[in-house]
Amino acid sequence: MTLAARTSIPAVRYQERLEAASLAAADAGSDALLFGFGADLRYLTGYEAIETERLTMLVVGQGAGSARLVVPLLEEPAARAGCRVDVPIVTWGETDDPSALVASLVREAAGADRPARIAVSDRLWASQLLRLQRALPGVETGSATAAIRGLRMTKDPEEVALLRLAAQAADRVVDQIAAGRLVGRTEADVSREVRERLVAEGHDHAEFAIVASGPNSASPHHDASDRVIQAGEPIVLDIGGLLGGYASDITRTIWVTGGHPAKGPDEEYRHLFAVLHSAQAQATQAVRPGIPCEAIDAAARDVIAGEGYGEAFIHRTGHGIGLEGHEEPYLVSGNGEALGEGMAFSIEPGIYLGGRYGARIEDIVVCGPDGPIPLNEAERDLRVVPG
Amino acid sequence: MTLAARTSIPAVRYQERLEAASLAAADAGSDALLFGFGADLRYLTGYEAIETERLTMLVVGQGAGSARLVVPLLEEPAARAGCRVDVPIVTWGETDDPSALVASLVREAAGADRPARIAVSDRLWASQLLRLQRALPGVETGSATAAIRGLRMTKDPEEVALLRLAAQAADRVVDQIAAGRLVGRTEADVSREVRERLVAEGHDHAEFAIVASGPNSASPHHDASDRVIQAGEPIVLDIGGLLGGYASDITRTIWVTGGHPAKGPDEEYRHLFAVLHSAQAQATQAVRPGIPCEAIDAAARDVIAGEGYGEAFIHRTGHGIGLEGHEEPYLVSGNGEALGEGMAFSIEPGIYLGGRYGARIEDIVVCGPDGPIPLNEAERDLRVVPG
Repeated sequence: MTLAARTSIPAVRYQERLEAASLAAADAGSDALLFGFGADLRYLTGYEAIETERLTMLVVGQGAGSARLVVPLLEEPAARAGCRVDVPIVTWGETDDPSALVASLVREAAGADRPARIAVSDRLWASQLLRLQRALPGVETGSATAAIRGLRMTKDPEEVALLRLAAQAADRVVDQIAAGRLVGRTEADVSREVRERLVAEGHDHAEFAIVASGPNSASPHHDASDRVIQAGEPIVLDIGGLLGGYASDITRTIWVTGGHPAKGPDEEYRHLFAVLHSAQAQATQAVRPGIPCEAIDAAARDVIAGEGYGEAFIHRTGHGIGLEGHEEPYLVSGNGEALGEGMAFSIEPGIYLGGRYGARIEDIVVCGPDGPIPLNEAERDLRVVPG
Repeated sequence: MTLAARTSIPAVRYQERLEAASLAAADAGSDALLFGFGADLRYLTGYEAIETERLTMLVVGQGAGSARLVVPLLEEPAARAGCRVDVPIVTWGETDDPSALVASLVREAAGADRPARIAVSDRLWASQLLRLQRALPGVETGSATAAIRGLRMTKDPEEVALLRLAAQAADRVVDQIAAGRLVGRTEADVSREVRERLVAEGHDHAEFAIVASGPNSASPHHDASDRVIQAGEPIVLDIGGLLGGYASDITRTIWVTGGHPAKGPDEEYRHLFAVLHSAQAQATQAVRPGIPCEAIDAAARDVIAGEGYGEAFIHRTGHGIGLEGHEEPYLVSGNGEALGEGMAFSIEPGIYLGGRYGARIEDIVVCGPDGPIPLNEAERDLRVVPG
């Protein structure tokens, strides 16, 4: 039995979450919250539905016990096996109209022929939303993900434990890659190795494996390419996957010398990296309950801007993480929401000099009662390795 | 260089597709077609955008040369590297409102302050669609995926070549799994091996690996579980991934004896499988330009129903395939659309006896000028193996 299997969400938690979702529907003034496949559905039921054009939808009305799970007939056994909470399952056949079925459940939940307001999960496909809107003429549509954001943002202890396992697995992969051969290989080849190692270290599957070498390290979301890694350049490694359903996401920057002492980082890169390292540490140290998200962003940005690299830090400082790789809260200027105990997020400032090189350091951090609890422990310093 | 890299879509094709999309916008009466990340965007530009909450959007107006690609600032270098067609890129920063930016481009394309009609790609996230609708009050919203369906359904020769490479890679994985050890292992363990082998045989990544053993074989979309495979039962193996951006999807059914001759398939299973084999062959042989999609479904269903298994065939006969694992055309009762040369789809009838066992056979087939061109060549007969 794997660690992740031993560290899982107890069944009672799903029951509590589903009850809380009904209250959230009432708070949001929605006749029903409608969740398609994805993280919200996994959060509320444990069921990981296949992501296809066939509609799967959890309908949660304001009343206790009002929840119904709509699934395609051919997925009924999979839904029964996957649900960790007792919720009635309603099936539709291949030639039925699932939007009409959901609309009838919404009418039932609303106790009205023309429900006034629904809310749908953020990742529902547009095609499915448009069909629902046609099946419920005149209905106002809000966000069901927003309605339960307070629940999902504050992690249960079991969720933090899973995030920690995922972070530690990603830590090991970074260490393995930094210790291995890099010079002379393509980014894509290293990226493949990262994905294999993420799974070997316990991830359910790899989600992404950015390997950005040389000038590509100045592209924050670079897609691993056929570029061959050279001695005397940096590599930004930004990797992650899902472990026990929870996301890992770590960035470390490596400098490969090819074993030539003369091919170490130049003076400017050492300076830039020292600034970045300090910014990441300052932002992390600022974490505590009650501090606004944007203050964490500012803590990193102030350090970087103070050294003249403000224009080179072209993205926010971080994003929430949990069942999704990116979720609330976002650590970005303009977000005045206060951090709370149990929130989990990345802290990942970067400095990018277009056409030359760049660097980023990223940890997953949980807001503890007294301050930050970093889940990643892999060495954050610039790793100068032979590669 | 891999086969997939040598067999790729020529750059001129993207130019042609983008021009055709402008004509499609006019035909659909849409001021603009709006494509988020995903298959439509890959089809039109070659760019594989990262799937996150940050808006990436290709805006295609009715005029030639009207296309603009909206991307987050931090992904500008990735977009420039990924686009295979010359389209102006417009960026937005982390504190900008990308919906307002897209709305302004739509107004420009429409030459009007209040555009009347837009169309969005089917897989756009609901959260992004709702923000666009708020930024364009009163706008009517249709499907941009539907607007270019005629383009995507009819595969170019290069697309067929990539689908064939993907199918052949999946064929090899089925053969490898059928030849290996199965009895005594969990479904999840075999599923992991399938995913590794899909990549080893040339896929960019694995998308799914259904391993449904014993009674689980009666669940068409079973999620590989911790069930241990036993001697004397069937395994439905339904696997696929993306190779050169194009999807594979094959199903074969294996019976594992554990090396005991007495543990072969029982009489009913042999009969059921023979019926299924005949149904799959009849449906395949019916493929030709001009025949309605529903007639292919009926060809399989008539055979199965004729033998009394009609109620046990609980899904449609097939789905289109290309840049997505499921796309148009759907081979389902009620779909009167005629097949055309170059369409690619699965033919995958199944028979499921709940609580006991089930079976499915699936090939990817292209509609050729004179009849079916099956891309999968792996043996379709029931494979009775020691396992």
